[in-house]
Amino acid sequence: MFEGIYTPVLTPFAEDGSIDYEKMKHNLDKWSATALAGIVVLGSNGEFVYLTEAEKVDLVGFCIEHFHEDKKIIVGTSYESTAETIRFSKLVGEMGADAVLVLPPHYYKGSMTEAALEAYFQEVADQCPVPVMLYNMPPNTGINLSSALVARLSNHPNIAGIKDTAGDIVQLAEIIRDAKQPFSIFAGNAGFLLPALTLGANGATVALANILPEDCCRLMTLVQDGKWEEARRLQLNLLQVNHLVTRGIGVAALKVAASYMGYEGGLPRKPMIPLNVKDREKVEGALKEYLVTR
Amino acid sequence: MFEGIYTPVLTPFAEDGSIDYEKMKHNLDKWSATALAGIVVLGSNGEFVYLTEAEKVDLVGFCIEHFHEDKKIIVGTSYESTAETIRFSKLVGEMGADAVLVLPPHYYKGSMTEAALEAYFQEVADQCPVPVMLYNMPPNTGINLSSALVARLSNHPNIAGIKDTAGDIVQLAEIIRDAKQPFSIFAGNAGFLLPALTLGANGATVALANILPEDCCRLMTLVQDGKWEEARRLQLNLLQVNHLVTRGIGVAALKVAASYMGYEGGLPRKPMIPLNVKDREKVEGALKEYLVTR
Amino acid sequence: MFEGIYTPVLTPFAEDGSIDYEKMKHNLDKWSATALAGIVVLGSNGEFVYLTEAEKVDLVGFCIEHFHEDKKIIVGTSYESTAETIRFSKLVGEMGADAVLVLPPHYYKGSMTEAALEAYFQEVADQCPVPVMLYNMPPNTGINLSSALVARLSNHPNIAGIKDTAGDIVQLAEIIRDAKQPFSIFAGNAGFLLPALTLGANGATVALANILPEDCCRLMTLVQDGKWEEARRLQLNLLQVNHLVTRGIGVAALKVAASYMGYEGGLPRKPMIPLNVKDREKVEGALKEYLVTR
Amino acid sequence: MFEGIYTPVLTPFAEDGSIDYEKMKHNLDKWSATALAGIVVLGSNGEFVYLTEAEKVDLVGFCIEHFHEDKKIIVGTSYESTAETIRFSKLVGEMGADAVLVLPPHYYKGSMTEAALEAYFQEVADQCPVPVMLYNMPPNTGINLSSALVARLSNHPNIAGIKDTAGDIVQLAEIIRDAKQPFSIFAGNAGFLLPALTLGANGATVALANILPEDCCRLMTLVQDGKWEEARRLQLNLLQVNHLVTRGIGVAALKVAASYMGYEGGLPRKPMIPLNVKDREKVEGALKEYLVTR
Repeated sequence: MFEGIYTPVLTPFAEDGSIDYEKMKHNLDKWSATALAGIVVLGSNGEFVYLTEAEKVDLVGFCIEHFHEDKKIIVGTSYESTAETIRFSKLVGEMGADAVLVLPPHYYKGSMTEAALEAYFQEVADQCPVPVMLYNMPPNTGINLSSALVARLSNHPNIAGIKDTAGDIVQLAEIIRDAKQPFSIFAGNAGFLLPALTLGANGATVALANILPEDCCRLMTLVQDGKWEEARRLQLNLLQVNHLVTRGIGVAALKVAASYMGYEGGLPRKPMIPLNVKDREKVEGALKEYLVTR
Repeated sequence: MFEGIYTPVLTPFAEDGSIDYEKMKHNLDKWSATALAGIVVLGSNGEFVYLTEAEKVDLVGFCIEHFHEDKKIIVGTSYESTAETIRFSKLVGEMGADAVLVLPPHYYKGSMTEAALEAYFQEVADQCPVPVMLYNMPPNTGINLSSALVARLSNHPNIAGIKDTAGDIVQLAEIIRDAKQPFSIFAGNAGFLLPALTLGANGATVALANILPEDCCRLMTLVQDGKWEEARRLQLNLLQVNHLVTRGIGVAALKVAASYMGYEGGLPRKPMIPLNVKDREKVEGALKEYLVTR
Repeated sequence: MFEGIYTPVLTPFAEDGSIDYEKMKHNLDKWSATALAGIVVLGSNGEFVYLTEAEKVDLVGFCIEHFHEDKKIIVGTSYESTAETIRFSKLVGEMGADAVLVLPPHYYKGSMTEAALEAYFQEVADQCPVPVMLYNMPPNTGINLSSALVARLSNHPNIAGIKDTAGDIVQLAEIIRDAKQPFSIFAGNAGFLLPALTLGANGATVALANILPEDCCRLMTLVQDGKWEEARRLQLNLLQVNHLVTRGIGVAALKVAASYMGYEGGLPRKPMIPLNVKDREKVEGALKEYLVTR
Repeated sequence: MFEGIYTPVLTPFAEDGSIDYEKMKHNLDKWSATALAGIVVLGSNGEFVYLTEAEKVDLVGFCIEHFHEDKKIIVGTSYESTAETIRFSKLVGEMGADAVLVLPPHYYKGSMTEAALEAYFQEVADQCPVPVMLYNMPPNTGINLSSALVARLSNHPNIAGIKDTAGDIVQLAEIIRDAKQPFSIFAGNAGFLLPALTLGANGATVALANILPEDCCRLMTLVQDGKWEEARRLQLNLLQVNHLVTRGIGVAALKVAASYMGYEGGLPRKPMIPLNVKDREKVEGALKEYLVTR
């Protein structure tokens, strides 16, 4: 059972486009010292699609070596082909990952019927040496994992949960209602963290936890302690910064925000473009205002 | 300030297509005896687009005459043209409506810029003798009222609130954060009633309250009393019936469900088609199961 | 059988919001003197959704009285309810309309299944005293009439054709392939007039014909005369002005363009907003350039 | 300048999931003997997203070795990262590819602004040793290359053209109107081949040319010879088979159709699922009917 707040760690790049491991180490040390339950390596916020496989393996190894040994490490292992996803999942499982996070294949949207998706996840879960977390991310993939499909998949003994970034709170509620227990249901965006927890979600894997990990953890603690009004105010306060670093602008904004908060964001990798001055000011202004009012 | 649970009342039609006022009276009596704060007449669930203006006026008059005099009546007054919406809003205001519920005009989606929508609502609110509630209903209109637009409109002294059926819980949270108080924020679908209340919504106007008014009211009371776990279970239990009578099938299913629950659903009006046997069984089966487990 | 180029006539409004019949007369006289096969009254470009029924009846009567008696008049008669569409179709049929143009009902998008739409059009066609043209207009209605549905409906003896504004050229080709002859297939936007004619369309009902009727007619003549290279150049030349008066800006731009071309556009009716200076210059600039290069 | 009909070659897989080079050879020999101007290797129909880089290199080498030496070979070289696309484009350029076909990066849809996309294609074109063809494929990528962006990119001396699978015939017309010559504009789906050619497209790269290469070439010849009525009939006849092997079902159907037509389709690679019996019969039935009536 996975619980608590995870952050899908960003990958800082140097001017020459290489992974900046010094910055990565700095960040891993900081996240290790927080209340975070764990990290996700090679998630969307980690720009995994821009990394070669050699870089992926190096980065996973580095995180396993340097992140707090008592906290969990989940690794994104998605490829379009079933065979590749299985191969890479086995590899990171052997390296020591606690679980893998797997997107639906999504290039051939018309061919990815529920039957095809179900067979894919079943086969990956059958062969993966560590638990599989489903990763529902329609804004990036153009494919939604329906609550009915997720409920069916929850019966697989090696499918441990879902990170749901879809933002459809009714669908999330249906998953909570229907999934076979134990099944870890994680909010995938801090914009709906409180609603998800209210309905019974077990945790979250959210970009915002890169830069405000303690605040995300505190929101969860407030709910556990029944301090609903404080939780409500915190949720509303978090919205604006969260919007900018996710749906509003995205990873490039998250990196600027990270640097502002004492982490090392580094640069995004091309084709992603670094923030222009105006957007940088918007992100830093939102953070400044948040820090004053929290 | 509007608060509590409202039901957007269905309009029962007879075999010959006319409004069945006997059935309407039966339902109004039953709703009057519940904890509902009020009703919405001429909402989407009332099939307002299928009524002639003469029928609309008759129906509003009938509801004002027969619904509990201490409860509120909100009337849907949307037309595509500004002038018509104002004219009809004045009329129902004079008839005794407590407020009007107004959709964005939506036929010319490309022309309905935020500027056009803002001017529309401002002008309607300027001239309407009773408070205006905004009605955000993207599934039917294809137009979304952004949280920024709603926040601007909340400054108008005669715009009293919003019924938000969009289902984007983050957007709803932004409205709660940004609207100028007092501003009544109503969930527009019972599928996200608990999340909305958790974030600070003031009430709801939901189709489900036609058939399960006390259960909807109870969910709100549970939240007010801090009984979160009971509220959570009730929310999850309500999902399936709610799905069928709203997004899953719609008004025709709501009418069948109403009849099953001791209300008088009557028939939908053409071109809407009554439920086939299979869907009828699905709706009744879901209700039966809900009643057993609640 | 309907053939040739029709224009869905704009409705000029005066400063006080009333229909400006003097301007309407001016335009009808000019259109009468062109090669247009006919006009459509109460189409989308005529802002039909902003007119009261009394205004609709007056306007239809005025057009029948003043438009060229040897040309055809098709009238838009769409209401959401089956009964209202039939009632109004009968009325304009008795007034002398040559055909009616009917949208799918579209407020309850989830309930408007193919079965519901088919029953609707069948019943309207059964009872309408003049031929029915289907009107596929997804950008405004959010509903698409599939080629399979259109093909089935083409078997009804009183369904005479379709105006297809969807812009899916493959779907249009399928309709041409499958519809039971005779069936008049009209392009609904001048942006794809040449492709539609190449595939076998019988004509067009396009906004652009309000302001450049002869050019639209000439494109059709060029195709009939086998002058494909000239047709091709004309099609490409027409694109920019057409874009601005349809998908790019819309009816408000069409009215400005009309006035520039010697017609009387008048104002749009609220909530539609008249063009700002910048857009006005863009529209007039595009027309100026077109007139120089044609 | 690229002209004529290309086929984006399918990749036949064996039961064990490996590339079946014997089948590939069989197909290359057959395509070599047709009027096709060339082939595209590693296109969407080639399931390029399911191939490892080693397999991609092998396959490209195999095609260069075995395909007709006087015909052209275009290779799909898309990766999400700019650096990877450039690296692989250089590699296949050195191997002998005549051009590369490049998708917009599309995982971070929110970050792929026009500015980011323009910078991406400019940089790839700057560094690629052979001409670059843009590849607009919104159904798979969720990103559209606007006609304005394509027009700007057409100014780059090493951007040679576009394969446009979007199916928006107006957008295609705008590209034809605005692109700086020489610029090769290819229809990306046989469903709108005739409309595209009518407007001035230079050719096509279409899945259907895998199985009916001569018929696709004949359509182009008919247009060049001014035999419009024959072209029109051929276009309409091709629609149904084309629908099934592209938008209707997809690559798995294309493979079944290939085998039916004397090519060797082989199996799709997982997670794509082979056709079930019912769909197989539908595809074969459509082909049978086409062959009888052509």
